[in-house]
Amino acid sequence: MDIHLEPIGILRSELTHLAQAPKQGSEGAPQARLELYPWAQRALHGVHVGDRLLVLTWLHQARRDVFECHPRSDPNQPLTGVFATRSPDRPNPIGLHPVTVRALDGSTLHIGPIEAIDGTPVVDIKPVLGNEF
Amino acid sequence: MDIHLEPIGILRSELTHLAQAPKQGSEGAPQARLELYPWAQRALHGVHVGDRLLVLTWLHQARRDVFECHPRSDPNQPLTGVFATRSPDRPNPIGLHPVTVRALDGSTLHIGPIEAIDGTPVVDIKPVLGNEF
Repeated sequence: MDIHLEPIGILRSELTHLAQAPKQGSEGAPQARLELYPWAQRALHGVHVGDRLLVLTWLHQARRDVFECHPRSDPNQPLTGVFATRSPDRPNPIGLHPVTVRALDGSTLHIGPIEAIDGTPVVDIKPVLGNEF
Repeated sequence: MDIHLEPIGILRSELTHLAQAPKQGSEGAPQARLELYPWAQRALHGVHVGDRLLVLTWLHQARRDVFECHPRSDPNQPLTGVFATRSPDRPNPIGLHPVTVRALDGSTLHIGPIEAIDGTPVVDIKPVLGNEF
């Protein structure tokens, strides 16, 4: 099956290099701008300031040929399959970021905290369901 | 940017048609088998029975040209942007399914509850982080 993702927008962040980025949003990541492409703006109708969202990104600098890693990049941790970790390096490097909407300005969402770097393509936005986790 | 997903496996479920499928796993969905492709099995090392996982799928029967919908397919609900809903119909129909691992048999995971239908491609598996939702 041929599966093609079409970015719906792009992330604009003060984080410009992976080395600056915390491993999770909850670990001191900044706020950022999610600039939706104009064709996708209609799909945002009903998203409000204060909403908790799941932003799905394409971690474009990740490696796709990594199957095992040391969790938290800590060599003292045993080698572990990437499906048991949140490593960005994995066969399909889809990032999953729980964020809060801080402001909404046309097709631009101000969200955070989010650890993805500037220029990361955004591929989906979903509301958090209260009962699912 | 050209983004290609490579399925890591396929879902085998008693649900064979969308009309049978509940809207969320928590709404009475069955257990199912996740058959990982042999090349991806190494990435499963460290996943154990009882783990809570997020399974990401490609909802291959979804429509990608839908930008607004009536939530829960209820015509009495106001038309809402798909990014404010969990509709499978959206520009990039990635399914996000919180499940529990019930059994593990080589490259086959027995998981559930999950509302995706038989034959749905699986594109990623992530552990649930305790602090994120």
